[in-house]
Amino acid sequence: MSELGTAEAGAVLRLLLDGQPRTRAELIDLSGLARSTVTGRIEALLTAGLVVPSGEAASTGGRPPARFRFNPAARLILAVDVGATHLSVALTDLTGEILDRSTTPMNIAEGPEVVLDAVAHKARALLRAAHRSPGDLAGTGVGLPGPVEHSTGRPNHPPIMPGWDAYDVVGRLTCELPGPVLVDNDVNIMALGEHTAEYPDVDDLLFVKVATGIGAGVISGGHLHRGAQGAAGDIGHIQAPGRTELCRCGNHGCLEAVASAAALAAQLNASTSQGIVDLVRAGNTAATTAVRQAGREIGTVLAAAVSLLNPSVIVIGGSLSRAGDSLLAGIREAIYARSLPLATTDLQVVTARSGPDAALRGAAFLAQQHVLAI
Amino acid sequence: MSELGTAEAGAVLRLLLDGQPRTRAELIDLSGLARSTVTGRIEALLTAGLVVPSGEAASTGGRPPARFRFNPAARLILAVDVGATHLSVALTDLTGEILDRSTTPMNIAEGPEVVLDAVAHKARALLRAAHRSPGDLAGTGVGLPGPVEHSTGRPNHPPIMPGWDAYDVVGRLTCELPGPVLVDNDVNIMALGEHTAEYPDVDDLLFVKVATGIGAGVISGGHLHRGAQGAAGDIGHIQAPGRTELCRCGNHGCLEAVASAAALAAQLNASTSQGIVDLVRAGNTAATTAVRQAGREIGTVLAAAVSLLNPSVIVIGGSLSRAGDSLLAGIREAIYARSLPLATTDLQVVTARSGPDAALRGAAFLAQQHVLAI
Repeated sequence: MSELGTAEAGAVLRLLLDGQPRTRAELIDLSGLARSTVTGRIEALLTAGLVVPSGEAASTGGRPPARFRFNPAARLILAVDVGATHLSVALTDLTGEILDRSTTPMNIAEGPEVVLDAVAHKARALLRAAHRSPGDLAGTGVGLPGPVEHSTGRPNHPPIMPGWDAYDVVGRLTCELPGPVLVDNDVNIMALGEHTAEYPDVDDLLFVKVATGIGAGVISGGHLHRGAQGAAGDIGHIQAPGRTELCRCGNHGCLEAVASAAALAAQLNASTSQGIVDLVRAGNTAATTAVRQAGREIGTVLAAAVSLLNPSVIVIGGSLSRAGDSLLAGIREAIYARSLPLATTDLQVVTARSGPDAALRGAAFLAQQHVLAI
Repeated sequence: MSELGTAEAGAVLRLLLDGQPRTRAELIDLSGLARSTVTGRIEALLTAGLVVPSGEAASTGGRPPARFRFNPAARLILAVDVGATHLSVALTDLTGEILDRSTTPMNIAEGPEVVLDAVAHKARALLRAAHRSPGDLAGTGVGLPGPVEHSTGRPNHPPIMPGWDAYDVVGRLTCELPGPVLVDNDVNIMALGEHTAEYPDVDDLLFVKVATGIGAGVISGGHLHRGAQGAAGDIGHIQAPGRTELCRCGNHGCLEAVASAAALAAQLNASTSQGIVDLVRAGNTAATTAVRQAGREIGTVLAAAVSLLNPSVIVIGGSLSRAGDSLLAGIREAIYARSLPLATTDLQVVTARSGPDAALRGAAFLAQQHVLAI
């Protein structure tokens, strides 16, 4: 069901999302719907501006039939990427293409009121700059750096987000912005962004974020797999075999306690992921060795994921993925050592392509899929 | 697309699969299709016998409208469960309900020609006994005890099936039996059987078979997750942390090498899964201790699967699951020790309910979902 006041128009709209102009007869053929139904739906989509006339097809005798195409500029999507220490807000069109953005430092520990006020403020400023009205917003997608209960959009005991636990993010933002608000954790958002933008035809993909923490987004059968409580992909607390380091979760030997940027920073006297990346790029042997070993630990856990899910692509993202080949080499080494040949024959293990915009694009896709019901 | 010669009737048929009789007006309402389309589809379904008249609804003035219902007896499904040492073949109706069956000892090492000839022979005997003709078969579902390439239905380097590698099972059976033939590995088949029959409303479920080997079937978003090569669920070769036993795959410390019935049988001087189950039931301490430790090893691997997939149900099946509480207790102990609280709050870890018919029911559902396009 589409959210764009065109509930019944869904099937016809979906047929036009590929950007191809189509005639009424082609839409009747493709949808299997009755002529009167298709005509009514095209009218509704034309009224909503989601579809526009697009010239005429070749005549087969008589008046040439009109063509219609999807109009991605009809409405806007607000994409929000809330990081631990930054806030990015972007306006996109209905295909998720970024039109304008604003990124500023922001400490998430300021709490939900301050951060979400800033989101609304930035949204209004972007709309003004684009000479568009709030009514042009079709919906908002938000990524948060912690677990989110998918059904409600509320953070669920997020470790680095004081004051956010169970906060009604959706309720707060719908008071400020028109249209539905969708919330998910940043790793799912990045997985969605990378999958939709770079691997739209891949059914089974794992996106792994290696940064201060470690998490994964699971694409199964072309869709984000969130699991029963929306906690799927939480690979940072899988046991790294043979390791016993105490993790902040209270367990011992968690992957995050031995292979995250936070764990490496402590070991290398670096303060941030970027500090580690700089050390590796400067040829520091201790840093290169540590990053490669972290890759092996991550790869051992991913080998289990390969046996369980048999993905065709594993994408490594997050700030530590910028350390270059050492991390990837360690990950590949462990995956190939521990997986059955059948599952790795055509497996690609690669670094993320979508770069710093991955989270914003993913947040836009989250809202897009909901408002266009795709 | 339905395979039953009623390609366009799919949407209308799906609305009737719940067994509820419905009027033409109700079907128009529910499907959003035009009256002429629904009328045409009902005619096609009546002609195919898939839908039958089912009395009349209360009149709202004028002639009371006719009701239609799904007719599961219209056609038959052949369900085939090929084990290492047995062959079971059953006839089911279109809901997967078993009507008649035949089980005999059969060594899979006899090779595909002998085994599949026996399948065709048993199918014809069951049809004769039921006074039905081969033309009544809508399709066949087959479970094999080894990896199967999903797109082709060919076994892929199956370790215990000499002569079957890359054999064209589908081609051979379609020469003998009418209708489409679907093939999958036995664990996926059992997962499908347990999910469809016992947990139809659960979106995310793991079925774990603990027998001579160890494998899993992954249900994600209500559908079987097969992965890129159909190798998903191959958890028997995930590393059991800290273990170094040589596995038949050539790696060390695989779960299957330390916790399968084959591994326990070697350790306990029992010859079969049933031998181990008998020892446990007789109160043999060494057997109980070994089974419980096997449960812990399996649970440690499943804890990683819980973190990755956040399922709401884990079903333990296979011959060793009959050893009772010791196996389940060990599995639960390790899962709860190693998983984050959010993912285990509502997690059920239970033994399989569907019993010895799980594989036959699953094979029937595999064919049913294909021929009814559900």
